[in-house]
Amino acid sequence: MGSKKRDSSRVTLSDVARLAKVSAITVSRCIRNPERVSEDTRVRILRAIDDLGYVPDMAASALASKRSNVVGLVIPSLTNSVFTDVLKGVYDAIEETRLTVQIGNSRYSPSKEENLIRTFLQQRPAGLIVAGVNHTEAGRKMLEASSCPVVQIMDVTDKPVDRLVGFSHFEGAKAAVRHLHDMGYRRPGILTARMDPRSRVRLAGFTEEAQQLGIFEPARVVSTPLHSSVGLGAQLFSDLLAQAPDTDSLFCNNDDLATGALFEAARRNIRVPEALGVCGYNDLDISAEVNPSLTTIATPRYEVGLQSVQMINAALDPEGEAAPPPVILGTKLVPRQSTRRRPMPSVGIHSGETT
Amino acid sequence: MGSKKRDSSRVTLSDVARLAKVSAITVSRCIRNPERVSEDTRVRILRAIDDLGYVPDMAASALASKRSNVVGLVIPSLTNSVFTDVLKGVYDAIEETRLTVQIGNSRYSPSKEENLIRTFLQQRPAGLIVAGVNHTEAGRKMLEASSCPVVQIMDVTDKPVDRLVGFSHFEGAKAAVRHLHDMGYRRPGILTARMDPRSRVRLAGFTEEAQQLGIFEPARVVSTPLHSSVGLGAQLFSDLLAQAPDTDSLFCNNDDLATGALFEAARRNIRVPEALGVCGYNDLDISAEVNPSLTTIATPRYEVGLQSVQMINAALDPEGEAAPPPVILGTKLVPRQSTRRRPMPSVGIHSGETT
Repeated sequence: MGSKKRDSSRVTLSDVARLAKVSAITVSRCIRNPERVSEDTRVRILRAIDDLGYVPDMAASALASKRSNVVGLVIPSLTNSVFTDVLKGVYDAIEETRLTVQIGNSRYSPSKEENLIRTFLQQRPAGLIVAGVNHTEAGRKMLEASSCPVVQIMDVTDKPVDRLVGFSHFEGAKAAVRHLHDMGYRRPGILTARMDPRSRVRLAGFTEEAQQLGIFEPARVVSTPLHSSVGLGAQLFSDLLAQAPDTDSLFCNNDDLATGALFEAARRNIRVPEALGVCGYNDLDISAEVNPSLTTIATPRYEVGLQSVQMINAALDPEGEAAPPPVILGTKLVPRQSTRRRPMPSVGIHSGETT
Repeated sequence: MGSKKRDSSRVTLSDVARLAKVSAITVSRCIRNPERVSEDTRVRILRAIDDLGYVPDMAASALASKRSNVVGLVIPSLTNSVFTDVLKGVYDAIEETRLTVQIGNSRYSPSKEENLIRTFLQQRPAGLIVAGVNHTEAGRKMLEASSCPVVQIMDVTDKPVDRLVGFSHFEGAKAAVRHLHDMGYRRPGILTARMDPRSRVRLAGFTEEAQQLGIFEPARVVSTPLHSSVGLGAQLFSDLLAQAPDTDSLFCNNDDLATGALFEAARRNIRVPEALGVCGYNDLDISAEVNPSLTTIATPRYEVGLQSVQMINAALDPEGEAAPPPVILGTKLVPRQSTRRRPMPSVGIHSGETT
C-alpha cells in the first residue's frame, strides 16, 4: 500500500550530489549560500533536491545557526473558538516574517504545559508564545532561563516573564454586569464552565461588580469544571432556574454558553430580552447571527495574536530595543437584542432614580 | 519589565555542572543514562537542572538519537471546528504514547502546506500526519522520500503516500440528497463555501445524486471561495432565494452554513421543516441544540484523529507490521427536526408512487 519507500533509507546530501553530478560540499554550499554557486550548478542541484524530495537536516543546521525559525505557541485549547481567533492573528502576522509557527495544546493542564515548554525550548525556537500567566514553577523557570523571547498572552499580570500582550477579564466581566444593571435587570445570574484561571477571574469580576451594585446573590452562581459547549449552556441555565427561578438576567462566561441559554429560553418560551436579559463574552461570529442577537463583551483575540508575533519579531531584530512594557488591550461591550429591554418605570428591587 | 534575563546567555550544561559540583560529562551522562549515576549525584543534578531551568539541547540529542518524539500534524485550518475534533482524537491517542504533537496550519494553501512539510521533516519527527490527499508535487515527493511514517487523513484516494485513515465526502453528500428526497423535498439547493478539495468532492456528490434522482438544477448551486461562517450561511441562503425562490430544501456544505441558513429562515418567517428542509454536514455540537434541531451527516473526525496517531505509533514499533491498508471510515445521516416533514400526498414534481 502506498508508494512510500518504507524500507529505503533517508535521502542524503550524497544522493543529491550524485544525481546533480557535483560534490557533496557543493550541495551543502548551495543550500547555505546559494549565491556562492554558479547559476548552472544551482539549477542542477535544486532540480535534484526536488526530484529526490531531499530535506536538509535541521538538527545539524540548528547546531550551526543556534536557532530555528520556528515560533512555538502553547495554548490550552484548540476546540475553544477563542484561541482559534488568536491563531488567525498569529498566522496573519507570521506571514510578514521569515518565521513559522508550531502549536502545542496543553489542554488546560499545567503539567502538559510544562512539558510543551520543555519540548519547544529543546528545539531552540526563534521565540515562544504562551497563553496565560499561570505556569508551573518549573515551567516559569524554564521560560525565564531561556535565551529566546517569550510572550505571555490573553491575560494580565504584574510579573510578566518577559513580554506580554493581553487584556483584563476582570474588567470585561464587570462591564457586563454594569450593562445588565443599566438595562434594568436586578437579579443577574452567572453561568460559567471550565474554571481555568481566566474563567475564575471573570467570575471574580462578576461577583465584585454585582456586590458593589447590591445585586449579588450566591444562589445565582452556576459553575462547573466541564468544558464549555452550546449544549452545556442550555443545561446550566436549567440548573440556574431550578435553584433561583426568579433570575432575570444572565452573564455567561462565553458565547457558547450564552447561545445554549438562548436556545433553552426559546424552548421554555421565556421571552428574551423582556423576561430575561442575556450577555455573553467574546463576541464570536454566532453572536450577531443568533435570534435574538446576543449582547456580549468583545475581546481583542485577533489583535493579541497579531501583536504577540510582532513582539517576537521585534525582539529578534539585533537593532531592536529592550523588552517593551506589557501591552494591555481593552474589551468592549457590544449591545444587541438580547438585553435591549425597553426602559421600564419602577422596575427591579432598587428604589430610585428611574421612577 | 519581566524577570527574564534577556541579556544573560543561555543556561548551559556547564552551569548545571558547576551548581551540582560535578563534571559536565557527569551531567550529560545523568541526562542520557540516569541509571549510570549514583542516586545522590542524580538528585543533586536534577535539583540544579530545576533551579536553573536548564533545557537539554535537542538539536544535539536529535543528532544522536536520529529522531525526535514529535509527531507533526499539518492541517488546513484551526478555525474550522472540523479539525478541532480531529485534534481531540489526536490528543487523546497521544496521551497513551511517549510522543508529543506539534501542529502546523496550512490555511488551505498548497504552498504553505509544502513549507510546513519541509519544516517538520527537517526536525526529524517521529511521524507526520497530513490532512487531505492533495499536495504539491514537491510536497508529495518529500513525504514519499521521508524515512518517518506518514498518515494522510480526512479523505480517500487510490494512491496514499503511506498510511491513510479517512472517509468519503462523496458518499456523505449523496446520503444527504437521498434523505432530502426521501422526506419529499424535490427542489434541493446546495450552499457551499471555501471550495477546498473536500468541499469540491461534496459538491460533486450532491450533483451526481441529484442528477440520478432527476432533481438537479444548476441555478440552485450557490458556492463561494470565502471561508465558512454562520453569517455566510445566512447570506448564501439569501443569494439562493434570489436566484431560485422556489427552492424547497438545502444541503449545506457544513453545519455553520446550515445554522446561518436556519437563522435567516427564521428572520424571513420561512417555516422549517414544512416549507424548507435543511441538512448540514459534520454534526457539530450546535446541530443538536439549535431550534429546530439540524439534520446532518455525522463525520468520524474524532476517530480519524485517534487512529492516525495509533498508526504512527504502530509504525514506530520495531516488531510492527508493514503499512496496513487504508482505513475508510463511514459517515452517518443524523435525522433531526429540520427535515422532519410530515409525509405529504402528491408532493413535488415527481409523479408517482407516494400518491
